[in-house]
Amino acid sequence: MVAPWHPALAGRLEERSIDSALLAENPLGDPATRPLLVYLPPGYDDDPGRRYPVVYILQGYTGFVTTWSNRQAFRPTYPERVDALFASNQSPPCIVVFVDAWTSYGGSQFVDSPGTGRYHSYLCDELVPFVDAEYRTMAAAAHRGLAGKSSGGFGAMITPMLRPDLFGGLATHAGDALYEYCYLPEFAKAVRALRRFEGDIGAWWADFRAREAFTMGEDHTLLMVLGVAACFSAGGDGRPLLPFDPHSGEIVDDVWQRWLDWDPVRMVPDHADALGGLQAIWIDAGTRDEWYLDLGATAFRDALHRAGIRDLHFETYDAGHSGIDHRYPPALAYLAERLSGQVTGPR
Amino acid sequence: MVAPWHPALAGRLEERSIDSALLAENPLGDPATRPLLVYLPPGYDDDPGRRYPVVYILQGYTGFVTTWSNRQAFRPTYPERVDALFASNQSPPCIVVFVDAWTSYGGSQFVDSPGTGRYHSYLCDELVPFVDAEYRTMAAAAHRGLAGKSSGGFGAMITPMLRPDLFGGLATHAGDALYEYCYLPEFAKAVRALRRFEGDIGAWWADFRAREAFTMGEDHTLLMVLGVAACFSAGGDGRPLLPFDPHSGEIVDDVWQRWLDWDPVRMVPDHADALGGLQAIWIDAGTRDEWYLDLGATAFRDALHRAGIRDLHFETYDAGHSGIDHRYPPALAYLAERLSGQVTGPR
Amino acid sequence: MVAPWHPALAGRLEERSIDSALLAENPLGDPATRPLLVYLPPGYDDDPGRRYPVVYILQGYTGFVTTWSNRQAFRPTYPERVDALFASNQSPPCIVVFVDAWTSYGGSQFVDSPGTGRYHSYLCDELVPFVDAEYRTMAAAAHRGLAGKSSGGFGAMITPMLRPDLFGGLATHAGDALYEYCYLPEFAKAVRALRRFEGDIGAWWADFRAREAFTMGEDHTLLMVLGVAACFSAGGDGRPLLPFDPHSGEIVDDVWQRWLDWDPVRMVPDHADALGGLQAIWIDAGTRDEWYLDLGATAFRDALHRAGIRDLHFETYDAGHSGIDHRYPPALAYLAERLSGQVTGPR
Amino acid sequence: MVAPWHPALAGRLEERSIDSALLAENPLGDPATRPLLVYLPPGYDDDPGRRYPVVYILQGYTGFVTTWSNRQAFRPTYPERVDALFASNQSPPCIVVFVDAWTSYGGSQFVDSPGTGRYHSYLCDELVPFVDAEYRTMAAAAHRGLAGKSSGGFGAMITPMLRPDLFGGLATHAGDALYEYCYLPEFAKAVRALRRFEGDIGAWWADFRAREAFTMGEDHTLLMVLGVAACFSAGGDGRPLLPFDPHSGEIVDDVWQRWLDWDPVRMVPDHADALGGLQAIWIDAGTRDEWYLDLGATAFRDALHRAGIRDLHFETYDAGHSGIDHRYPPALAYLAERLSGQVTGPR
Repeated sequence: MVAPWHPALAGRLEERSIDSALLAENPLGDPATRPLLVYLPPGYDDDPGRRYPVVYILQGYTGFVTTWSNRQAFRPTYPERVDALFASNQSPPCIVVFVDAWTSYGGSQFVDSPGTGRYHSYLCDELVPFVDAEYRTMAAAAHRGLAGKSSGGFGAMITPMLRPDLFGGLATHAGDALYEYCYLPEFAKAVRALRRFEGDIGAWWADFRAREAFTMGEDHTLLMVLGVAACFSAGGDGRPLLPFDPHSGEIVDDVWQRWLDWDPVRMVPDHADALGGLQAIWIDAGTRDEWYLDLGATAFRDALHRAGIRDLHFETYDAGHSGIDHRYPPALAYLAERLSGQVTGPR
Repeated sequence: MVAPWHPALAGRLEERSIDSALLAENPLGDPATRPLLVYLPPGYDDDPGRRYPVVYILQGYTGFVTTWSNRQAFRPTYPERVDALFASNQSPPCIVVFVDAWTSYGGSQFVDSPGTGRYHSYLCDELVPFVDAEYRTMAAAAHRGLAGKSSGGFGAMITPMLRPDLFGGLATHAGDALYEYCYLPEFAKAVRALRRFEGDIGAWWADFRAREAFTMGEDHTLLMVLGVAACFSAGGDGRPLLPFDPHSGEIVDDVWQRWLDWDPVRMVPDHADALGGLQAIWIDAGTRDEWYLDLGATAFRDALHRAGIRDLHFETYDAGHSGIDHRYPPALAYLAERLSGQVTGPR
Repeated sequence: MVAPWHPALAGRLEERSIDSALLAENPLGDPATRPLLVYLPPGYDDDPGRRYPVVYILQGYTGFVTTWSNRQAFRPTYPERVDALFASNQSPPCIVVFVDAWTSYGGSQFVDSPGTGRYHSYLCDELVPFVDAEYRTMAAAAHRGLAGKSSGGFGAMITPMLRPDLFGGLATHAGDALYEYCYLPEFAKAVRALRRFEGDIGAWWADFRAREAFTMGEDHTLLMVLGVAACFSAGGDGRPLLPFDPHSGEIVDDVWQRWLDWDPVRMVPDHADALGGLQAIWIDAGTRDEWYLDLGATAFRDALHRAGIRDLHFETYDAGHSGIDHRYPPALAYLAERLSGQVTGPR
Repeated sequence: MVAPWHPALAGRLEERSIDSALLAENPLGDPATRPLLVYLPPGYDDDPGRRYPVVYILQGYTGFVTTWSNRQAFRPTYPERVDALFASNQSPPCIVVFVDAWTSYGGSQFVDSPGTGRYHSYLCDELVPFVDAEYRTMAAAAHRGLAGKSSGGFGAMITPMLRPDLFGGLATHAGDALYEYCYLPEFAKAVRALRRFEGDIGAWWADFRAREAFTMGEDHTLLMVLGVAACFSAGGDGRPLLPFDPHSGEIVDDVWQRWLDWDPVRMVPDHADALGGLQAIWIDAGTRDEWYLDLGATAFRDALHRAGIRDLHFETYDAGHSGIDHRYPPALAYLAERLSGQVTGPR
């Protein structure tokens, strides 16, 4: 039974912030000073010579670091789960960094985009050096991982593909993948929701910002569609281009192709070397995921297999897309072991 | 208020059958003798010199002609609605032919396929001549139309594209179109349903046939996926090829392309001349259609517009996919007027 | 696999009608001449001296005898199932009578009411004698049973309680019972649906009759609420009295008590002798029944147990309220055996 | 647009705790030291002679004070909304106290029970005096109010009925009421959920505590049923007694009556004087509330009307049970005005 009031930790959770040069003058006017949480495992303060692997935690769409402290009855927060994992010695210790990549659209997909800002570069070129400078990390790709759920799982999949020099492991929980199932049906819903706005998602966006958020049934769908368009298919002027006709839903092929170019399943062949060099790959999802990300997980695994990468952990479990945070600690332990150099395989 | 017991008609409904040479030795062993219902309007027997336009009615998936007599409380059957339309002089009279194109998979999509049989040819080259021989029809394309709902609407869209020499008008109610929304999400559901069959749709099919039908939640989805594959993407040996990997849902591009080649929206450009020559085009769907066929309807209309075809009737209405049979009579009247030669436009 | 077109029967199905004196001048102006279907088992015509038990089949709300011929793909009709049961010798033969007790409200609950008419008496005092006179029945309670689903199951439960002199067996499939779960939640939905009619169910009824039926989401709920009120709680003038305030849903205790007086679970103690004398009691329901009639079935069984009645068949199965017609034949066989005098127990 | 990271307040939010003598040795072993949040409006520190009315905020089931800081994207927390209300001078200032009444079952319903503890007395006899002692309150019933949602709305309704000497105003948002609609249908769901525990809710409770919470679909239903039984119908030994048979759902009348005795709608007649003396009554709910608490709100208003109490605010709005926290500030302003003595009516 979880006592709801007193989250005493065995380790420490530091609230920090970073002044990002890369996010300065981002197109949405979002702050360039960003918060982050740094979890230091039990014992960190005891042995000043010891260095630790680092796992960067990425959030799902509409997440921002302060939501990590949201509490649900009868369930610990994720930072508390992390702490319990290390306090109970179920995992080698590591430093866990909770990343903020929020935008005014609710997310960045952890990519560089003229529609939102340079969040990929901020993560790789500012946040990682900051953490390495401020904490006793094992500052090499082989000791650095990424983990996340949903959009965060997407970030965890693509970032090591793009920067194998920085990251040596990933864990994706219900990460965005196989876009024909996770995104296409949303477009159909979006078209219907846009009828009251005469097909103008800008009109919806203005409305959404002017009233209480999420009081219209399809607000979440439209926010995601608009926000991901800002990440994947912004025009040169930064305005999001929709990958579908807002009246009929007909696919706009060239814009949709820009989305597909970011589908982790489709990205694998071009990044097989990067992926093949990773120390740790963990893939999971719930078999009832509302966005069919269990299929995305399976397809991502299959794509890795086709690329000859078979040293990975894959599992599905009876769950939807929500309430699966108790599934993260085993993945974190898996990463911690692999990134500590404690597990060495034939690779 | 509908009296449920005594459906007295002003016209006549004849139960006929036709011996099809084209369906003989169809791959599924389905009967080659097929029933049809022929509705003759009030007055047909009074003036032996009068000839009538004909509208062929196609059914949705799992429909067969005897289901036209299924009765729901408080609602007339469709043949009764047809009769009431003509009895009340809301439409010029026409002959209405209820077509049977059932297969053991639950439908034929009104196409020729090695997976099911030659249902398109049976309709065009056997049924139409039969009706013209047996009844006082106006035996020309300008006086012959097709109407249907769901798969029947699909049949009504594609048949005049392929045979403008035979058909001069169409009405589609929630007809299958824009396959990325009506079919793709079904594939994701099918993958999940196939888990208990280890991804083998043949195992499901054997199970489905051996037990009480439709007692498994996803029976309808799997039946449709299998049946439409038999129609659109059968192999040379007649076996249905799925357009997706049954474990991951990943699209099998070449098979999926065979489906897309049958998407009415995508077929329009290649058949613009045929469509442009039609006397009557009626398109409708419910705005809450569970397969997003309101988007399909809109996209089909847009494709026609892009092809320069603007003389058509389009409407959407507050409804789902079911219970919209009261929407058919206005379309039938529209066809009857246009195919009677009573409406002549600038075309 | 079911061939959809040719329902050839081994026995015979006769369409008959009966002129009811008791239904003459019924308050709704519904016809006093009523259809019925009489199924005669294989062999009926071969041995003119043989007599048969009779099972009367009652329908669910909005059912009327002609709906027994409605066909669904891949599934036989219920009369065809009955025929197959006897044709395959899985049951002793019996005569099966399909009863019509439709009213303008969609049903009668098989009770006498100033709101609808004398349907209980019509069944017991007109239909049974008619069948006994016209067919070679075993004309005694010990050889006469009732079976039905939903409202028909309700009728099958209550009729033998009231007339043990006439009926010796019953089978209830998802029969209406335990009204706090099957009816009360409907009242809450009805209140919401009535908001657009300012709480006036009469205004809804006028609207429902003037437009296409069942095009408003809650039509079914309101029809059932109104119709059952007409059966259970009509005023002296025949007008249905609602058991709840149409604005707040607050229960009107005395009217609700009139409904509860017709709850089979609550009726058992007062009719224990009648029930204890039955030859056959079959109770079943699906464990996912949308009206919680699995709980109703359990509570009815428990009430019988408390009354000392333990010789009964009870089962639940994985199903909802719909599509359970394949569950009827085993119950019919059970009744046929017991009512043939083939099974005799310690009672 | 809400900036997600920096909740700067115009007033102050103090985290306090109280050592409760009344909760010591509560039957569940829950802590007797309880947190509370005290919001002090802008200006509180500027004028040490000024006194303020107080509104106590009660939470819904499974709520505990730290959940008030849970953040959702694009929406402020409720304390931030409170602060914005006062900062913008849309309301006279008042002190707002966020009460903790959590138990191991997830809630206390703010009543005294041998099943949970003396939470009503703790609120009235310990928390109120504590606040009056520690802050510059207007320490009289006419200046003291209660507000809450769901179970918190229930607490806001019943507490002034029981202690009009302490409280002079209430605001209920979707408060538990009209138990035949908000609770009875849950019993039916609970029976089904208990099948896998052979009807033993104690077995479910042991299971729930031993595994990850809320991973079984009906966990929320069972928790609520068990917890409310602990509040309303505990036995002398403190064990919750269910108001229904766990196998059939049949109501256990005497236990259910104990629940009904706590139905605010049914409590009104016996507490009409207390309610008639209140300065402020605010009642609202969403018209799509999943527990039909819009009907409960309507029935509570109607009961007040029948008791002659007509000076109240009542409204419903298009919403479900969740996400209605933006509806609280207008009610708080209403209470603040009435409890400041700024509005005086004919009473």
